[in-house]
Amino acid sequence: MRSDGRAYDQARPVNITTNYNKHAEGSVLIEVGDTKVICTATVEERVPPFMKGQGKGWVTAEYSMLPRATSVRNQREAAKGKLGGRTMEIQRLIGRALRSVVDLEALGERSITLDCDVIQADGGTRTTSITGSFVALAIAVDKLCRERNLNRFPITDFLGSVSVGVIQGKAHLDLNYEEDSKAKVDMNVVMTGGGQFVEVQGTGEEAPFSRQELDELLLLAESGIQGMIRMQEQALGPIAERIKGASHAASRR
Amino acid sequence: MRSDGRAYDQARPVNITTNYNKHAEGSVLIEVGDTKVICTATVEERVPPFMKGQGKGWVTAEYSMLPRATSVRNQREAAKGKLGGRTMEIQRLIGRALRSVVDLEALGERSITLDCDVIQADGGTRTTSITGSFVALAIAVDKLCRERNLNRFPITDFLGSVSVGVIQGKAHLDLNYEEDSKAKVDMNVVMTGGGQFVEVQGTGEEAPFSRQELDELLLLAESGIQGMIRMQEQALGPIAERIKGASHAASRR
Amino acid sequence: MRSDGRAYDQARPVNITTNYNKHAEGSVLIEVGDTKVICTATVEERVPPFMKGQGKGWVTAEYSMLPRATSVRNQREAAKGKLGGRTMEIQRLIGRALRSVVDLEALGERSITLDCDVIQADGGTRTTSITGSFVALAIAVDKLCRERNLNRFPITDFLGSVSVGVIQGKAHLDLNYEEDSKAKVDMNVVMTGGGQFVEVQGTGEEAPFSRQELDELLLLAESGIQGMIRMQEQALGPIAERIKGASHAASRR
Amino acid sequence: MRSDGRAYDQARPVNITTNYNKHAEGSVLIEVGDTKVICTATVEERVPPFMKGQGKGWVTAEYSMLPRATSVRNQREAAKGKLGGRTMEIQRLIGRALRSVVDLEALGERSITLDCDVIQADGGTRTTSITGSFVALAIAVDKLCRERNLNRFPITDFLGSVSVGVIQGKAHLDLNYEEDSKAKVDMNVVMTGGGQFVEVQGTGEEAPFSRQELDELLLLAESGIQGMIRMQEQALGPIAERIKGASHAASRR
Amino acid sequence: MRSDGRAYDQARPVNITTNYNKHAEGSVLIEVGDTKVICTATVEERVPPFMKGQGKGWVTAEYSMLPRATSVRNQREAAKGKLGGRTMEIQRLIGRALRSVVDLEALGERSITLDCDVIQADGGTRTTSITGSFVALAIAVDKLCRERNLNRFPITDFLGSVSVGVIQGKAHLDLNYEEDSKAKVDMNVVMTGGGQFVEVQGTGEEAPFSRQELDELLLLAESGIQGMIRMQEQALGPIAERIKGASHAASRR
Amino acid sequence: MRSDGRAYDQARPVNITTNYNKHAEGSVLIEVGDTKVICTATVEERVPPFMKGQGKGWVTAEYSMLPRATSVRNQREAAKGKLGGRTMEIQRLIGRALRSVVDLEALGERSITLDCDVIQADGGTRTTSITGSFVALAIAVDKLCRERNLNRFPITDFLGSVSVGVIQGKAHLDLNYEEDSKAKVDMNVVMTGGGQFVEVQGTGEEAPFSRQELDELLLLAESGIQGMIRMQEQALGPIAERIKGASHAASRR
Repeated sequence: MRSDGRAYDQARPVNITTNYNKHAEGSVLIEVGDTKVICTATVEERVPPFMKGQGKGWVTAEYSMLPRATSVRNQREAAKGKLGGRTMEIQRLIGRALRSVVDLEALGERSITLDCDVIQADGGTRTTSITGSFVALAIAVDKLCRERNLNRFPITDFLGSVSVGVIQGKAHLDLNYEEDSKAKVDMNVVMTGGGQFVEVQGTGEEAPFSRQELDELLLLAESGIQGMIRMQEQALGPIAERIKGASHAASRR
Repeated sequence: MRSDGRAYDQARPVNITTNYNKHAEGSVLIEVGDTKVICTATVEERVPPFMKGQGKGWVTAEYSMLPRATSVRNQREAAKGKLGGRTMEIQRLIGRALRSVVDLEALGERSITLDCDVIQADGGTRTTSITGSFVALAIAVDKLCRERNLNRFPITDFLGSVSVGVIQGKAHLDLNYEEDSKAKVDMNVVMTGGGQFVEVQGTGEEAPFSRQELDELLLLAESGIQGMIRMQEQALGPIAERIKGASHAASRR
Repeated sequence: MRSDGRAYDQARPVNITTNYNKHAEGSVLIEVGDTKVICTATVEERVPPFMKGQGKGWVTAEYSMLPRATSVRNQREAAKGKLGGRTMEIQRLIGRALRSVVDLEALGERSITLDCDVIQADGGTRTTSITGSFVALAIAVDKLCRERNLNRFPITDFLGSVSVGVIQGKAHLDLNYEEDSKAKVDMNVVMTGGGQFVEVQGTGEEAPFSRQELDELLLLAESGIQGMIRMQEQALGPIAERIKGASHAASRR
Repeated sequence: MRSDGRAYDQARPVNITTNYNKHAEGSVLIEVGDTKVICTATVEERVPPFMKGQGKGWVTAEYSMLPRATSVRNQREAAKGKLGGRTMEIQRLIGRALRSVVDLEALGERSITLDCDVIQADGGTRTTSITGSFVALAIAVDKLCRERNLNRFPITDFLGSVSVGVIQGKAHLDLNYEEDSKAKVDMNVVMTGGGQFVEVQGTGEEAPFSRQELDELLLLAESGIQGMIRMQEQALGPIAERIKGASHAASRR
Repeated sequence: MRSDGRAYDQARPVNITTNYNKHAEGSVLIEVGDTKVICTATVEERVPPFMKGQGKGWVTAEYSMLPRATSVRNQREAAKGKLGGRTMEIQRLIGRALRSVVDLEALGERSITLDCDVIQADGGTRTTSITGSFVALAIAVDKLCRERNLNRFPITDFLGSVSVGVIQGKAHLDLNYEEDSKAKVDMNVVMTGGGQFVEVQGTGEEAPFSRQELDELLLLAESGIQGMIRMQEQALGPIAERIKGASHAASRR
Repeated sequence: MRSDGRAYDQARPVNITTNYNKHAEGSVLIEVGDTKVICTATVEERVPPFMKGQGKGWVTAEYSMLPRATSVRNQREAAKGKLGGRTMEIQRLIGRALRSVVDLEALGERSITLDCDVIQADGGTRTTSITGSFVALAIAVDKLCRERNLNRFPITDFLGSVSVGVIQGKAHLDLNYEEDSKAKVDMNVVMTGGGQFVEVQGTGEEAPFSRQELDELLLLAESGIQGMIRMQEQALGPIAERIKGASHAASRR
């Protein structure tokens, strides 16, 4: 039994509040245990310079933690005058993961920026950001489709993410901060609704890991992500049906 | 009648949720109409270099808006690599205002940082930050007093703030964003529970203003701030009594 | 009696040397006591991006102190790699104040930058910068009017500024550095030649202040600013007449 | 057959020139095909602040490309004034990977910095940097052991890295730049001499990948890394024996 | 005859106003034709980290131009967030030149910073800064000697500087901006009162120059610098005698 | 005899490896003793903003040292977030020197960037960079001429550079690092194949120098540079003939 009473293969409670922000085209407050992230999707009718004139859209992400999201206060990156390596790594990951389920041609020459702001952190902030920002993205895309009469729905599948890790020789699902600190292997996995991998990032800084451990972690991650995607479906309601339809259509192309 | 149905001398509804963050020594979510700010107070057992060795504490503030707190997305200051002038001006104001009601000697050689993060903006973010961060500060100071047995309670009075402005020749209390955009005079006022001024910042960029207009604005601000302070008292419960006691003691010294 | 022999309601001697710089379209060296500021006005036939295509001009300001303008040397902001909060606050104030008396439509789609460089500081550098840069601006605008045949003179009124403060319970006009350091309330006021307020910025960091103190400070500021404007008129000679004419015309529109 | 004539499971030729730099404690020029990286190891008798007083050492890495390492010139990060996200991600990866095979306690309170400077790039620069910097590190550690009489050899195993990817549905080993550009899945793997995983980073930005594809990639990576480690052994000569001894001792603890 | 009526071997009028700043330990306003530079010397009882514990002092310089010192306004380096290459080059030159005539041991473990702020530029700002800052330095050192009873006077010789250049095949002394723009060779020379070279920096970007041209330029520079040093002597009055005494003593050591 | 056995007027062995980089239009590895620099020339079909529309080209340079090029590791300028003064000074020098032998009109509206990356330093890195980058430039220009059918060869002469210095009263040619550290006078000279000076930069920070010392240094530099240019001719082969032809043609214009 884990310190918070969960079984080793049990994720923390997930809560997704949609339309949390009155200005954004799509937004959620996602809570996974005590980790809380506000995700907003901003649609802009322009693309970055390197994408211009290709008739395709772009999806990107930014990630930040409030200074006191953590148990010790962190200095703001704005005050330091630069983004840290961890922040850059995470926001590149979120953007890359989301793009894997977006049909950039169907989106048209516009961009969507997902802002993931962690207002309270307790482990798994990057995976929670991915799971939450997918929902904000879907809401914004749905709104866009209706307003702009896009030819086809540009989201091709669901996308969820969890962390898994090895603690005292045993694979655990969805680590909280305390568990994360003592895990010898730490892995973040992103998968589609169709059960394909989008990102597998496993790190054994404390100690390398065997192929068997890797396999156990991947299985656990798969089941955890399926749970996340069920929560997304529930939060999205009718929009979830549109995604399923688009996914079905995409798989036949 | 104003666009949201208020009378010219009526403030928006105020809601203060205390202990909104599990890590911070003091925290609130303050909502004034659609303006929402998370304020956290972090206590650290050190002071900035220029305060060292004086046996006195320090109180400072940082202010930021989430990129999509506003109707158009703003680039993050962390991404730009520097704080803008508006941000610096606001965080200097918040810190200065709070210090006016803190007995830095009673606080002892430690510092308290108030982080004000605007998660949704609709006018008055700086005044809302001051009103909210006072409550977070009081909670943190109360906790500190109990844990460290401070000689006296280091908060000497309540502190509230509102904005006022002249729209179409008439003074209005607590402007929302739409009103703020069309006001010809804009004034932010900070006052103590005892009815003294801490900051008066009036600006007539669009058009200069007369002494009579100034007097009307100050009266309106005074009544608005009294309302804010009543909400603070309610949110603070028994801690409010400690502030009143300290204020009473301070006025007799 | 004050340390430099002045009465509490007496400003320091003011000296304005016009055309101090051979390159700038307008320039002054302004001395208020031992505070000395070089103000230059640069006219450029373009506006910042956010003003483009509106047929209106822009007026902005930059402020800096030479490293040894003060009794202890300050590190250059260029060496630090960023502008401090105080600098940003001051240059925003100067620009905003000047714009309040400029008819941006009459100016046409061009911009004027006022550079205020403090070569020696002894209190009141921001108010002295405003008073001095108004004169540099007027000289540049007058030259522009003659060269470009503008339809109407784009300066609508005089603009002066002083600091006032409460020292030992008594309101004082035009604080020098030593007085500024011991004032419990510090206020900067900007007014037009017509006696209207443009900026009122009062701060009681050390101790809050009463409504009565505020009223006394405002009265003192008003008389001090009238004196500043008389010095401007004298320095500007015939240009002063053009401003009066434009002010008269504006008040009739 | 691949464009350069290799079989799908064949790595490019590897050449490791040791002691390439006369100043560094350890150094190599590593060439994997046309990818060329200079790796130097610098030993310093101090640790970063967060490691002080723990009696343990630290290993870290920095990564950079010469501007014309690539077919189009890249602007220097020194000229831009900041490190890009890709650079930060890579140097964090290199440092983390190397630390997994260093016994930081045996190293003692000193730090080793691995500088990986890509002088010519043709795909796989991060994996080549890991493989090369391991050799530079081993040379520096060996020198340190002899000069400082360390109790035990602080490197606990070999460490190699390769990239693998899926091109046209088939797993390929050691992608060059041209192949990397058209791979739909891209994976970097780091393994120890003992065949354990240290890092697995698989990305399917273009298209998600199945569990079966993942398994094929991991197998291919394993065989490629074994080849890399044989080249390291050859380059290190007698030092390779010391690593094997330390690895054997470590596995018995 | 030159455009301003001078002979080819004639410098512009030089004017040195000492004690121009009431705060600095030493200060001048130096005018060479229309080039005007404020030089202040700041004495601090500490040295930079790389000089600590050697019992020796340090002399360094910073250089800046007001934005409108030039005929077209330059953006502030503080606003750009970094010093340009030209500024760095000039301030390194000024510091290096001054150190060549300072006995750092006699100065003791303290540092002197020369701030050279160009308030109006018309060619020769770097050489004027050197000539002027020598005087500010001498005043500060003299004051220091008297206050701290230094064993010997730490300035070992006079130091002056001029620019020379080849225009239409003929060597010219002390170029103004217009001449500088059309010179094919441009040379800055720094010499001591004893007639030795401290810096010779000749540049033929437009066209290379012959040995004969170099010789002519050096002769012209020598005579120009002697004139500068006579102006320094006059400005320094009795302090000049102390320098001569120290120079005499140094030459006998 | 010098520590490495050379005569005072003898340069170190020079080795120039052309086409060291497969991507760049021109490239060399130049070794002067233990100083090793990679120079690459990048041709781009655009010019910087200040050169636009003049029908002329531009040549510029960047300079950097690998962190461990030196005996003590230097922090990367990319990590510091800014270029140091020494780097800026050197890259300005290299660009200026190269431009003196390039016919920018013949080059046409395109730019060539020379990247000089010091991979091992032992004195004379800036002069070695100039000598090496001239060769890289010539290779790139030759390629450009052939591909674009330029009207005339845009390099008008050879260009070489050496350092000279005074050690224990005697002029020495081509100082290594150890010698450089003890030289009282340090001079870098750049000359053309025709024996004209392009840059003369002599510095006597430790002690000023006489006219006679200057003359000796210049003579020594001249002979050293002739040797450098012979090595360039040898490395360039047939391209050397084209430069001689262009030089001959230029001297007749």
